[in-house]
Amino acid sequence: MTKKRIVLAYSGGLDTSVAIGWIGEQTGAEVIAVAVDVGQGGEDLEVIRKRALDCGAVEAYVADAKEEFAAEYCMPALKANALYQRKYPLVSAISRPLIVKHLVRAARQFGADTMAHGCTGKGNDQVRFEVSFTSMAPDLKCISPVRDLALTRDVAIEYAQRHELPIETTKHNPFSIDQNVWGRAVETGYLEDLWNSPTKDVYTYTDDPTYPPLPDELTLTFEKGVPVAIDGKACGPLQIIQELNSRAGAQGIGRIDIVEDRLVGIKSREIYEAPGAVALIEAHKELENVTIEREQARFKQRVDERWAELVYDAQWFSPLKKSLDAFIEDTQTYVSGDIRLLLHGGRATVTGRRSDSSLYDFNLATYETGDTFDQSHAKGFIEIYGLPAKLAAARDVKFGRGVDFGIGNL
Amino acid sequence: MTKKRIVLAYSGGLDTSVAIGWIGEQTGAEVIAVAVDVGQGGEDLEVIRKRALDCGAVEAYVADAKEEFAAEYCMPALKANALYQRKYPLVSAISRPLIVKHLVRAARQFGADTMAHGCTGKGNDQVRFEVSFTSMAPDLKCISPVRDLALTRDVAIEYAQRHELPIETTKHNPFSIDQNVWGRAVETGYLEDLWNSPTKDVYTYTDDPTYPPLPDELTLTFEKGVPVAIDGKACGPLQIIQELNSRAGAQGIGRIDIVEDRLVGIKSREIYEAPGAVALIEAHKELENVTIEREQARFKQRVDERWAELVYDAQWFSPLKKSLDAFIEDTQTYVSGDIRLLLHGGRATVTGRRSDSSLYDFNLATYETGDTFDQSHAKGFIEIYGLPAKLAAARDVKFGRGVDFGIGNL
Amino acid sequence: MTKKRIVLAYSGGLDTSVAIGWIGEQTGAEVIAVAVDVGQGGEDLEVIRKRALDCGAVEAYVADAKEEFAAEYCMPALKANALYQRKYPLVSAISRPLIVKHLVRAARQFGADTMAHGCTGKGNDQVRFEVSFTSMAPDLKCISPVRDLALTRDVAIEYAQRHELPIETTKHNPFSIDQNVWGRAVETGYLEDLWNSPTKDVYTYTDDPTYPPLPDELTLTFEKGVPVAIDGKACGPLQIIQELNSRAGAQGIGRIDIVEDRLVGIKSREIYEAPGAVALIEAHKELENVTIEREQARFKQRVDERWAELVYDAQWFSPLKKSLDAFIEDTQTYVSGDIRLLLHGGRATVTGRRSDSSLYDFNLATYETGDTFDQSHAKGFIEIYGLPAKLAAARDVKFGRGVDFGIGNL
Amino acid sequence: MTKKRIVLAYSGGLDTSVAIGWIGEQTGAEVIAVAVDVGQGGEDLEVIRKRALDCGAVEAYVADAKEEFAAEYCMPALKANALYQRKYPLVSAISRPLIVKHLVRAARQFGADTMAHGCTGKGNDQVRFEVSFTSMAPDLKCISPVRDLALTRDVAIEYAQRHELPIETTKHNPFSIDQNVWGRAVETGYLEDLWNSPTKDVYTYTDDPTYPPLPDELTLTFEKGVPVAIDGKACGPLQIIQELNSRAGAQGIGRIDIVEDRLVGIKSREIYEAPGAVALIEAHKELENVTIEREQARFKQRVDERWAELVYDAQWFSPLKKSLDAFIEDTQTYVSGDIRLLLHGGRATVTGRRSDSSLYDFNLATYETGDTFDQSHAKGFIEIYGLPAKLAAARDVKFGRGVDFGIGNL
Repeated sequence: MTKKRIVLAYSGGLDTSVAIGWIGEQTGAEVIAVAVDVGQGGEDLEVIRKRALDCGAVEAYVADAKEEFAAEYCMPALKANALYQRKYPLVSAISRPLIVKHLVRAARQFGADTMAHGCTGKGNDQVRFEVSFTSMAPDLKCISPVRDLALTRDVAIEYAQRHELPIETTKHNPFSIDQNVWGRAVETGYLEDLWNSPTKDVYTYTDDPTYPPLPDELTLTFEKGVPVAIDGKACGPLQIIQELNSRAGAQGIGRIDIVEDRLVGIKSREIYEAPGAVALIEAHKELENVTIEREQARFKQRVDERWAELVYDAQWFSPLKKSLDAFIEDTQTYVSGDIRLLLHGGRATVTGRRSDSSLYDFNLATYETGDTFDQSHAKGFIEIYGLPAKLAAARDVKFGRGVDFGIGNL
Repeated sequence: MTKKRIVLAYSGGLDTSVAIGWIGEQTGAEVIAVAVDVGQGGEDLEVIRKRALDCGAVEAYVADAKEEFAAEYCMPALKANALYQRKYPLVSAISRPLIVKHLVRAARQFGADTMAHGCTGKGNDQVRFEVSFTSMAPDLKCISPVRDLALTRDVAIEYAQRHELPIETTKHNPFSIDQNVWGRAVETGYLEDLWNSPTKDVYTYTDDPTYPPLPDELTLTFEKGVPVAIDGKACGPLQIIQELNSRAGAQGIGRIDIVEDRLVGIKSREIYEAPGAVALIEAHKELENVTIEREQARFKQRVDERWAELVYDAQWFSPLKKSLDAFIEDTQTYVSGDIRLLLHGGRATVTGRRSDSSLYDFNLATYETGDTFDQSHAKGFIEIYGLPAKLAAARDVKFGRGVDFGIGNL
Repeated sequence: MTKKRIVLAYSGGLDTSVAIGWIGEQTGAEVIAVAVDVGQGGEDLEVIRKRALDCGAVEAYVADAKEEFAAEYCMPALKANALYQRKYPLVSAISRPLIVKHLVRAARQFGADTMAHGCTGKGNDQVRFEVSFTSMAPDLKCISPVRDLALTRDVAIEYAQRHELPIETTKHNPFSIDQNVWGRAVETGYLEDLWNSPTKDVYTYTDDPTYPPLPDELTLTFEKGVPVAIDGKACGPLQIIQELNSRAGAQGIGRIDIVEDRLVGIKSREIYEAPGAVALIEAHKELENVTIEREQARFKQRVDERWAELVYDAQWFSPLKKSLDAFIEDTQTYVSGDIRLLLHGGRATVTGRRSDSSLYDFNLATYETGDTFDQSHAKGFIEIYGLPAKLAAARDVKFGRGVDFGIGNL
Repeated sequence: MTKKRIVLAYSGGLDTSVAIGWIGEQTGAEVIAVAVDVGQGGEDLEVIRKRALDCGAVEAYVADAKEEFAAEYCMPALKANALYQRKYPLVSAISRPLIVKHLVRAARQFGADTMAHGCTGKGNDQVRFEVSFTSMAPDLKCISPVRDLALTRDVAIEYAQRHELPIETTKHNPFSIDQNVWGRAVETGYLEDLWNSPTKDVYTYTDDPTYPPLPDELTLTFEKGVPVAIDGKACGPLQIIQELNSRAGAQGIGRIDIVEDRLVGIKSREIYEAPGAVALIEAHKELENVTIEREQARFKQRVDERWAELVYDAQWFSPLKKSLDAFIEDTQTYVSGDIRLLLHGGRATVTGRRSDSSLYDFNLATYETGDTFDQSHAKGFIEIYGLPAKLAAARDVKFGRGVDFGIGNL
């Protein structure tokens, strides 16, 4: 009888290296390690592949998914100006669906019927892994070794030492980190006291904005909501994000310190760095201000918000997410043009915008020579526009509920 | 027969000084000048009162409304985190209703049946003046000398010189400015080209953030959404806004450069400075993150957005605005506590928060000793939470519309 | 040592009668039976109280909560025009919080630390019971005998017979029914096939609308959103709902057959009868049309929808629900006046409305003598109102994306 | 010099027949009459064409646009379940854009630079005509003879008699009517008193529901949100609407009596008949209940509402409307299947639904044999789902704001 097979989201670190053997022992299944590079840096994929096999994986699947991540996950987030609670650019939230996509791919390729991940039982990522998984492969199952198979940190260290796994088991890193092309998330015990300031060692994507280098100005060119060039030089999405991570990071842009509403019902304190994402969203939003019609823009704010909530809430592959994407895609038709961005000391400031598809009409807007706005229309507009409020006011007066002017009975 | 009387929103400047006589000539009515101090600075109210009378006003009504403005207009905007297009803190939009309230008060007091204002026919403010007016006094009428009585700039200068009015008629100020306690708005011809950067002379509330002084840290105490102390020293709303305008202004915080969707259907480019407002909203929003429940917070984002749109759109006194206020007021019950804010180089950064009414539960959030979160619940939660997306995915697969893994027919 | 105590939501039926003893056996705790009359009809409360004690309850708490239910649960639902999926008036959803309130009251009174209910593990009501419970008494616990203690139907019958409980154990009723003052919910196996029509025996609150009696016309008087009189006769909320249940029920009004999105992630088919609720909502909504300002009404539609979703989703006692209530309450200030309603053959039709606080202005609306609407304002209004769409259209033309008139290149 | 040319929306009635000559006299322009058949019935298009020419039009453009109207205007409204104020299926609101499209087509074809329509200055239709027009042809202009050229009813009668136009000038019809394939709108002086019931002579699309014929049952088949067959017989959109107008009309379905918020700021009382539209929306909505995922369905309700408001508000050709259409189109992918509809006595009731793309899962929903829902997940789900409300409740208790059980200090 052939053994069951399980695909494991593999990072190359202690916990998931131990999980390979642990899952095998606890379930009797064979483990296929799946490592996906979304820009987290660190070791080479080949090193990771070898370690997976050394730790007992029957297969190791590795993929450089950085371009795919930038184009198919970061760019939709940019079009949606995606900021959960208006602050957090969904760094981890958008990488999970892509990693899971590769897990499903590996499961199909190697005949696995279960997916395993290394997340704990109180975070968002377990939900993102599992819901993304069943939203692509509703026939497959999920397990979490940490949550379901009691693979605690202490167990992992003991196991690794006993089996002499090729992985360090030294002191616990005080930081819990997730990072990728779109940004970096950090949690650490010290910051669980909400009154504590982040310490300097929390950050690696960004330099301290208190002492910035000279201001850095650049021009971003967008086509249909997607950046396609920096300073006139054509670049793909990955290259643009990386260059902005570097340049905006040097200016200390994109540090975020927030108390966040988790999907699992608790509040937590999170530190993020997302220099490129924050600078790009700033630029993209202002280009939308120039090119998107007012009512479309107002409704898009609601759509953007719901998009960010959904993606935060593990619904990347949900039907509603797809329909919101259809809405957003339609709004981006004219979001093309140039944005001049000044990066300095933690600030990404738009200082200029130009677009062939602008809805700004100089002649209507100007107060100088060339004004074409016919001011005579305003009176009629105001009369009719203000009519509902006026009728309501007349009723207030009738019922003695008018505005109190503090002048008694005149 | 007694003459008709008109109350005029009077600034003390050239246009409205001339308007006193011009309205009289064009309509035969007597003019009552109404000057309201909302923190715009400049001349003393008594000087303005005297000039109004010297220019022919039959009465001059002046009011120091700074405290009223801070408490009854800025504080509601703060509770709503009011940022139109997520950027503009509604500087002019919230002052108009208050000025108009005093205009109505003066109209009732002095027996006027019409209100006049100095706005042009292509801006938002004419709508705010007139809709606010009829939303308090639906029986009265409005006129705009500039728009309806052809009082152009050139006419004004000629009139002032001809009648030797006690007002300067020298060169046109290139800036069109509106300022008050909550911030400052600037328009100028040079910036009507969207590609031009703001020049340094545009700003007066803020110093250049490029060369900031040393970082400035402070602690704000809130009670039910309203700041009540700085660094433990109890202050009223006006005092707090003013102190933050000064300290955040020194750090170059709150400069805004945006293309904006006007109520009258056009896009315009606007420069704002609102150091106090921006710092306060940053602090208030984060205190909400700590104290407001997730679903309440999510819906409040939509309410906040609609509030900002309504107030921008001249609906301060509308029925919907009042109902949104009732919603918002209810959400502020627990928005009490301290926020530590770091002001530096254009950034207002929250670095600490503490609150007796916090919903953050250390024991549920911590990954260290003391964790009380029962992770065993997560599996059931994920199963049921993910069920709708899973069922939808199964249907996609059935109809051949599942996610494409690019691995052909395995 | 004193025994633990558990309060049990007690219906008097087989399952919860058995649960009294079963919970005792399984947990060692004493059981306090709590029966709340929300208008479900059936046996007298005293009969139920006696049975509870005969079945082994150490205390029996019974409460006639019909007036409380009508005033504090049905009336808020009416103000919110609460229809989940635009159809279902939340019959069961609004009764659970009230029943649970009495459970908590009994728990406090009798020193219990746990609540038990008879719901299964796949419905909404388990969630409503438990979330309502911890939303009032976060220190207490919940158990579900059916779900957590394996108290199946067969077990219950066997247990009742073995212990000779004073309760019938005969054939299973094919219908699963929940009913109260606000309506009646029915599920049954036959209707789990979505293509099957409801059979006549499903209904008891309503007669067949196919063969109605003569039309029945009545006038409802509302004050601030609440009905206070029928045909001029003052009545309390309970009396009005009951009279409308009777009169609208006789006309077959309020039958609902819907596929519903459950909170636990599945779709289910549900039959409801709510003659009074449906007639009242129809009347209330039309009185709102007459008395609520346009923008307030439009936003209230979103609030009403969210209210219905929240209450359906077990969030009656949640912070957001309270804030939505504050909004809604504010909108009801002027929802006073008379609605004439024609009840006939399944239809509740508003045929007349009159209100002192109406915003309908005959002189503005009429096309006959007396018209006071100044049509000259329309041109200016249309010019400015249509400007954004016009500018967007000009851009479409510029980019060759204008409307295609199918007439080639003229 | 060639004369200016104006396209006139021509109905064949007195007012627009006179307008042909009146516009010529007042403006010196040549008039092109444009008559579009959207199912309003009445005279043959050729009769209308001839009358236009006889009345002085230099060209007459007539178009049978019924199929186009059904497919491209009614079907999108159906997909959006479009009911303004949850009642009015936008009968006139969706016909105006189509008529205007033909007006622009005619303007392009015959070289006109202005559009004229016969609407008054206080209704919605003037706005719909003019905004639709400039949203397709931003270079052209609009005039309204009634509003702008003082063409009153009396003037029209006098003019027609003086010029012996081939049109009746007898007594004023007390009803102001607009009708098309999607329904019929009626206004009349008697109904301007909101307390008056509609009289029987108001209706022509529907028979009195009080005395209906025998019940009429039918099965509608939908594909991607669009009905494609009745009782298995394939039909186009127009044919289906017409058959339902006939069969649902015979049952008195689709009578609507509502106080409506007009775009021009006033409330008005309107009577509509839309038997086909109301029956189709009822069926379509229930098929959505079966086939659309919960969160997608909830958000679609907001989108549907905004769609109805926008189209009511003359924004058919606006950018936001297009983006909402993209969202809606995406949601309709699986809205395919059969709906059995019972038409009787004013009621259109869904009694059965079946769909290959249903999300209803019998095995998850059933309480009988075959149940596959794992109830053990519920406990974990409820714990985590209820956590935010529980934490908020604990805070309420801490601050003495917990629910009051009226039992004092136990």
